[in-house]
Amino acid sequence: MSSKLFDRVALIGIGLIGSSLARALRRDSPQTQIVACARRPETLAAVRRLAIADETTDDPAEAVRGADLVVVATPISAYAEICRRIGPALEPGAILSDVGSVKEAAIRDLRPHIPPGVAFVPGHPVAGTEHSGPDSGFAELFRDRWCILIPLPETPPEALARVAEMWERAGMRLVTMDAAHHDRVLAVTSHLPHLIAYTIVGTATDLEDSLKSEVIKFSAGGFRDFTRIAASDPVMWRDIFLNNREAVLEMLQRFSEDLTALQRAIRWGEGDKLEELFTRTRAVRRSVIEAKQA
Amino acid sequence: MSSKLFDRVALIGIGLIGSSLARALRRDSPQTQIVACARRPETLAAVRRLAIADETTDDPAEAVRGADLVVVATPISAYAEICRRIGPALEPGAILSDVGSVKEAAIRDLRPHIPPGVAFVPGHPVAGTEHSGPDSGFAELFRDRWCILIPLPETPPEALARVAEMWERAGMRLVTMDAAHHDRVLAVTSHLPHLIAYTIVGTATDLEDSLKSEVIKFSAGGFRDFTRIAASDPVMWRDIFLNNREAVLEMLQRFSEDLTALQRAIRWGEGDKLEELFTRTRAVRRSVIEAKQA
Repeated sequence: MSSKLFDRVALIGIGLIGSSLARALRRDSPQTQIVACARRPETLAAVRRLAIADETTDDPAEAVRGADLVVVATPISAYAEICRRIGPALEPGAILSDVGSVKEAAIRDLRPHIPPGVAFVPGHPVAGTEHSGPDSGFAELFRDRWCILIPLPETPPEALARVAEMWERAGMRLVTMDAAHHDRVLAVTSHLPHLIAYTIVGTATDLEDSLKSEVIKFSAGGFRDFTRIAASDPVMWRDIFLNNREAVLEMLQRFSEDLTALQRAIRWGEGDKLEELFTRTRAVRRSVIEAKQA
Repeated sequence: MSSKLFDRVALIGIGLIGSSLARALRRDSPQTQIVACARRPETLAAVRRLAIADETTDDPAEAVRGADLVVVATPISAYAEICRRIGPALEPGAILSDVGSVKEAAIRDLRPHIPPGVAFVPGHPVAGTEHSGPDSGFAELFRDRWCILIPLPETPPEALARVAEMWERAGMRLVTMDAAHHDRVLAVTSHLPHLIAYTIVGTATDLEDSLKSEVIKFSAGGFRDFTRIAASDPVMWRDIFLNNREAVLEMLQRFSEDLTALQRAIRWGEGDKLEELFTRTRAVRRSVIEAKQA
């Protein structure tokens, strides 16, 4: 377990996921050198205070020098520029990976700048909380969650295996799929739920004043769970919706049709239809618990 | 704290809320006799096994005999029939209360059968989990949550105060409002969130097989939180939607408009609109945490 995974890992972006990975690496591969790269000085100061990296820098090209693994963990809108900057500095034999939530867009933005001799292993550890920034990370974030890796035609199997081992040591279960399939699965399991949560929290806080003040007070009736999801990082989620547009819009269309059907059942007092759906959804919860994802 | 709240409390319906109240009464007023009434023999057997009531019966009229407090805690569709049966057996001087999530409907169904000399105090302890049945209850369910009482023109202030004291001892914060306002507040803080959660879980499990099997697997990305809410009691929730139709449909209409606006922003790539909303909703979470409802 304590054999060294990599000599030197560069984490480009050190928010919730990046800093959790740093902590997991410290635990799982103590001899690995960790370089943290962030744009903002206060983020780098937090990383130094937390002592979760050996070096810090705001220059991505400097960060990747000498690294045998580079993990991009910023919002997706930063990917193209980052890769343009690090491309020339990537070491031959190094592996470039990422943790982004939309894989077709991640590949589109990273791939053109990767020099020959550098292995590309797009990835997505499906884990998170509503908190962001290096202070919010923790090594156990990944425990028992799924990590999706996207092998490309040019991805060397041994590079895929090394990235997989890192996530496995962090406690994750590994699965591979193609990018388009990933983006549809995540559109329904993650992106649509977030979109709905953001919407309902917006709706509730746009109400007339006499109701608005009470929405918070009585939020324990169900609303508070949506506020938690709708507290997730605004820039990261803006980028997800802009970059997984087609899949999100498709799932949203299905959701809207189902909601309209339910609206009609309520209007016409069709209790049997409501009860049938609610009984069916209750069974889904049991499946989630059985799959240990609760 | 240990002075007797009531001599004898009849709980008509002993699911999550009824059984949690029984446990809280045991703790907060040990000398109070508790009678539990349920339709199904297995529910009554569970109550006896759990020893959370002194007597059990499937006859509501028998349950309320000699009780100075009767709390109706069944799904709303059972209210009218229950009150028709208990009306003649209610003791003069007794208090009738309930815990239903829709107050206009609760009052509509209970009020006509209440004999003169019996005080009516409609109530709603805003607390719950996705579990149901007497095994799922616990005394601490009510801690720091809000209890809404609905004083009617005929409600004696001393009856209101006694019911309020019971919930306060259980750890709740008390507030009064009128039934119509209650139903609009709960439509947005509780009923709409549940409706949305039921819908999205239904949508996700109606997908083609290649996606469906993965929805559970990757549910940690956000979907799992909706499955929890959508696991709530099907009959109770059917009754809530049927009985709070106007307010739910109004809030649903607002939600749909907002969702359509967001859909358009995604389609046209309007990132600034998305980020603005997501930043605003993040602040709402802070309010929920500050209000200690997280």
